[in-house]
Amino acid sequence: MGYRDTMTAMGRRAREAAHLMAKAGATVKEAFLEQTADRILAERDRIAQANARDIDAAEAKGLPKAKVDRLRLTDKVLKEMTDGLRQVARLPDPVGQITSMWTRPNGLRVGRMRIPLGVVGIIYESRPNVTVDAAGLCIKAGNAVILRGGSEAFHSNRCLAQILQESLVETGLPEAAVQVVETTDREAVLELLQLEDYIDVMIPRGGEELIRFVAENARMPVLKHYKGVCHIYVDERVDMDMAERVCLNAKVQRPGVCNAMETLLVHQGVAPVFLPRMAEAFYRHGVELRGCPETCRLVPQCRPATEDDWGAEYLDLILAVKVVPSMDEAIEHITRYGSSHTEAILTEDFHRAMRFIQEVQSSLVLVNASTRFNDGYQLGLGAEIGISTSRLHAFGPMGVEELTTTKFIAFGTGQLRQ
Amino acid sequence: MGYRDTMTAMGRRAREAAHLMAKAGATVKEAFLEQTADRILAERDRIAQANARDIDAAEAKGLPKAKVDRLRLTDKVLKEMTDGLRQVARLPDPVGQITSMWTRPNGLRVGRMRIPLGVVGIIYESRPNVTVDAAGLCIKAGNAVILRGGSEAFHSNRCLAQILQESLVETGLPEAAVQVVETTDREAVLELLQLEDYIDVMIPRGGEELIRFVAENARMPVLKHYKGVCHIYVDERVDMDMAERVCLNAKVQRPGVCNAMETLLVHQGVAPVFLPRMAEAFYRHGVELRGCPETCRLVPQCRPATEDDWGAEYLDLILAVKVVPSMDEAIEHITRYGSSHTEAILTEDFHRAMRFIQEVQSSLVLVNASTRFNDGYQLGLGAEIGISTSRLHAFGPMGVEELTTTKFIAFGTGQLRQ
Repeated sequence: MGYRDTMTAMGRRAREAAHLMAKAGATVKEAFLEQTADRILAERDRIAQANARDIDAAEAKGLPKAKVDRLRLTDKVLKEMTDGLRQVARLPDPVGQITSMWTRPNGLRVGRMRIPLGVVGIIYESRPNVTVDAAGLCIKAGNAVILRGGSEAFHSNRCLAQILQESLVETGLPEAAVQVVETTDREAVLELLQLEDYIDVMIPRGGEELIRFVAENARMPVLKHYKGVCHIYVDERVDMDMAERVCLNAKVQRPGVCNAMETLLVHQGVAPVFLPRMAEAFYRHGVELRGCPETCRLVPQCRPATEDDWGAEYLDLILAVKVVPSMDEAIEHITRYGSSHTEAILTEDFHRAMRFIQEVQSSLVLVNASTRFNDGYQLGLGAEIGISTSRLHAFGPMGVEELTTTKFIAFGTGQLRQ
Repeated sequence: MGYRDTMTAMGRRAREAAHLMAKAGATVKEAFLEQTADRILAERDRIAQANARDIDAAEAKGLPKAKVDRLRLTDKVLKEMTDGLRQVARLPDPVGQITSMWTRPNGLRVGRMRIPLGVVGIIYESRPNVTVDAAGLCIKAGNAVILRGGSEAFHSNRCLAQILQESLVETGLPEAAVQVVETTDREAVLELLQLEDYIDVMIPRGGEELIRFVAENARMPVLKHYKGVCHIYVDERVDMDMAERVCLNAKVQRPGVCNAMETLLVHQGVAPVFLPRMAEAFYRHGVELRGCPETCRLVPQCRPATEDDWGAEYLDLILAVKVVPSMDEAIEHITRYGSSHTEAILTEDFHRAMRFIQEVQSSLVLVNASTRFNDGYQLGLGAEIGISTSRLHAFGPMGVEELTTTKFIAFGTGQLRQ
């Protein structure tokens, strides 16, 4: 108990910092990002010490090795973090950008200007590099940020936040533009989620349970990313070599991520030729297939799928496979079982490609490319703070622009409303 | 009790209709809007009968005359409704619009395409014309809509919804694209607000109490508009004739609306000359002034303001007036007491105009024009479904584009992620 005052004070400081951040020029923000990168490299030892405390605690608690490894701020992770900061520094400053402007019949010139969102809250799990990545993006977009990381990375996060704050002060930006919740108590998070007057948007990053918890308790808007049940539909008219390469890439290049393919839909016209050879490639890469009856007939090794397989996010070397009589049935299947994340069609047919692009309402719809491209860096946004699978404000990867909004501006010469 | 099933069934029908609506072409949607306008005029008598039941009930309940008048579907109101529908029909179709497209180094062509939001919920009070205005806009943007109007307009809303549904069926669009909650029980609204799987966004329109109720209980995102505490700052270097006209327009042209001026801030350098003449004009128009000590000194008639006057949304012929030593203090006052709705600067000074535009973070910031322009029609959006004073998704007047989102699309030639 007693977190209300601490959290409210934190929110108030963030709001004040946000007012100053909104006025910060592009050069200062760039300097902050470059300086933070330099400082992180210069403070390697300090970071390593803090990180070691988290690692020791995690090992003492008997966390599985994979989880402990995710906490490690190795030289490679530090390099990625600092490269990321410098990349974000070089992105064009979104703040103050006039996205459009037009003149009204009465001569009033009306336009839209990009401004920061204000105060962004980020609640995340495990990996401490998120502290730096997220703070960097938020600052670039002129926001203040309140970060609440996972308890396992507590000391690492605190150390990185201190370095960020030192850079803020040194470049003349408000120290409170980056704040970290210094407790791992869930009560504190609950209080944070009540601060609708001080936090403009909450971005949870982590498992489904965390995201639901935030979505259900937050009083402010939440940008959320539930699961990625991504489909590839292999059309009747397809370049089979290309299809094999793309399907393999979408499933095995990194199976544990949200943009990996989870269900393969194959047109019945091509299934008898395509599925046996595709299955062979999958089996060679250790992928377990779970198929509809027709798939099992064409690929005798294939295990039958149950209703639960459609809609499953395996995040593993498992793939559901279904033969469909038409593209329309493929789209229907996607609409029914998909998660609006990423869907691709592989086809040589122009009209079906255009219809699929038009009719499938996922955050990324691709023609003849791997689902693995649904990622801010890959799509050219420069960086990303998450992938939104709901449609308000942002749908798909969120880059620096998605951390802004637009206000209307109008230049007049004394116009009156009649 | 017992509303859960009805509301869920309604949500499910809306979701199905939304899938079909997303595919509907521009011509069909245009035909629907034109036909609804024709039908409304053809069915004058039927509408008048339904409307009479609401009017009778309102009068029997002893509602004040102003409130009863707001319910009346007069010929003028019908004309405005149908003109509005035809205007929306002629707007460019936002759906399918590709807002930008670029090519990645690997040859992948990536773009953003506008798609409907899905299912929009609208909860509103009193005026039955909102039923038609809101439904028209939602359909234009390819959405399905669930409407819940005020109990006073129950019969009028139901009749208008039936006409909308008849038009939907006649033009081959899904009937469930427009649905009206046929009960005025608040329990039903509460159930509606739980349907996060079926309703993508909720837009409350009405008094502050209604908006807070929706914001606090909704599980889906809410686009909300709290109050409009709009400021005009009259700078030291100003064309006083223009300033007098603009201030008068902003306060008295229609004092009861959210974009009317509520506080006037005047630079001390111009106050001694400007305030006495401005006050005279205000008093001539029946405006009560409540001023800071300096204002009261310059305008002896002026009543002293209390702390509550700063930040008050009078919606009436009352105005708070304050003399400020600088533009920075004006901006500080706005940041502290404003509602992020509409703020204007009146000045001849280029640099201050540009700084004010940049530094004031309201949904519309004007130079040398009346605050009354914060309105979708006035700013050139063609129509509006409300004004958002929070920053997520939309900030300011929301037109047909704000009822859409964008998905990413990508055209490839077999690209794989490395």
